[in-house]
Amino acid sequence: MAGYVSEAVIRRLPGYYRHLCELEAMGVKQISSQEMGRQMHLIPSQIRQDINCFGGFGRKGYGYNVTSLRQHIGEILGLDHPHSVIIIGAGSIGSALAHYPDFHGETFDTKALFDIDPARVGTNIGGVPVYSMEELDSYLASHRVDIAVLCVPKEAAQEILNRLEAGGVSAVWNFAPLDLQHETDRMLVENVHLSDSLRVLSYRMAHQDGDAPKE
Amino acid sequence: MAGYVSEAVIRRLPGYYRHLCELEAMGVKQISSQEMGRQMHLIPSQIRQDINCFGGFGRKGYGYNVTSLRQHIGEILGLDHPHSVIIIGAGSIGSALAHYPDFHGETFDTKALFDIDPARVGTNIGGVPVYSMEELDSYLASHRVDIAVLCVPKEAAQEILNRLEAGGVSAVWNFAPLDLQHETDRMLVENVHLSDSLRVLSYRMAHQDGDAPKE
Repeated sequence: MAGYVSEAVIRRLPGYYRHLCELEAMGVKQISSQEMGRQMHLIPSQIRQDINCFGGFGRKGYGYNVTSLRQHIGEILGLDHPHSVIIIGAGSIGSALAHYPDFHGETFDTKALFDIDPARVGTNIGGVPVYSMEELDSYLASHRVDIAVLCVPKEAAQEILNRLEAGGVSAVWNFAPLDLQHETDRMLVENVHLSDSLRVLSYRMAHQDGDAPKE
Repeated sequence: MAGYVSEAVIRRLPGYYRHLCELEAMGVKQISSQEMGRQMHLIPSQIRQDINCFGGFGRKGYGYNVTSLRQHIGEILGLDHPHSVIIIGAGSIGSALAHYPDFHGETFDTKALFDIDPARVGTNIGGVPVYSMEELDSYLASHRVDIAVLCVPKEAAQEILNRLEAGGVSAVWNFAPLDLQHETDRMLVENVHLSDSLRVLSYRMAHQDGDAPKE
């Protein structure tokens, strides 16, 4: 495995992975970086350079084997082994995620939802049982949880984060509308900001008539 | 306004904007790029360089005025004027977005939801009225729509995209699980891939024990 890999490269890997999955589904066996660049609106040398960060792959003048490269990038992304997932907060975002097909697969498997609302506790959403927030600590004591998805109001986030860490959760995917900073070695935090991509769109709309950059 | 601005800079602007909003809410008046870099885990010279893409701002040895810089970046992002929004698809993601506070503000104002399910049509979700998909074209003929949020299954996306363009919609924020490519000058498309950030988290989990890069 490579040494230092830049944040920008890591952020591009899921895009390559998605694109390769689509090519595979269409029955494409082989692809050149030129063709992939054209399809993905990226410079071919950028693609080659990104992929080379993780060891040589592909043959000059022959291109990439789609399935091998998809598997290779999947392994780099850690998608070749299962992750158990819980969702904290069964409001609109938490419920939407519980219905999300990617959360009911071999890679990410959603085991439980937790909520404070007694009306939701005991039901199931998208096939996932809803437990009371009071049951969280004992659940964590008896189940291995790889990823906790945090879908709670801003005010509740920090206290729950502390409980998740105490319970041995490996990583948090945070939808609460604040940047959770978590500096310990024991738990990773990835903050999701839906509005950021909306604001990028707003930027493009504002700059459409001339000085807009091209992707 | 600056000429060419790189994609990476544009993608960082919403983060600066969010951070400055938080500082403003905490009553912070002035901030140096050093302090902002420490708080945001970015190199101070990176911050100065990004902000300088849009003309000089801040005074050497004095730092940035938080409110002025927040307003300045807000203007660059086009957040200083209102956008009318519709949501296509009132399933779990569409409904979650209809409840999203950012979608009921001065900048983004959600006017209507559209769905094919007769049980949903005529109700309202998060205060937003739900119309039938059959009403979409006539709605677009009589209302200005800046942004359409697409929350429909993959199979339905392309046909609806064509109707949105014919109806004069300026931009599409796409949650349908495919990369919509839209090459015309008349409508912008921003694809959201929730799973990408989950896969970045998975990458970090897999590389946590040594060679993981720090943000």
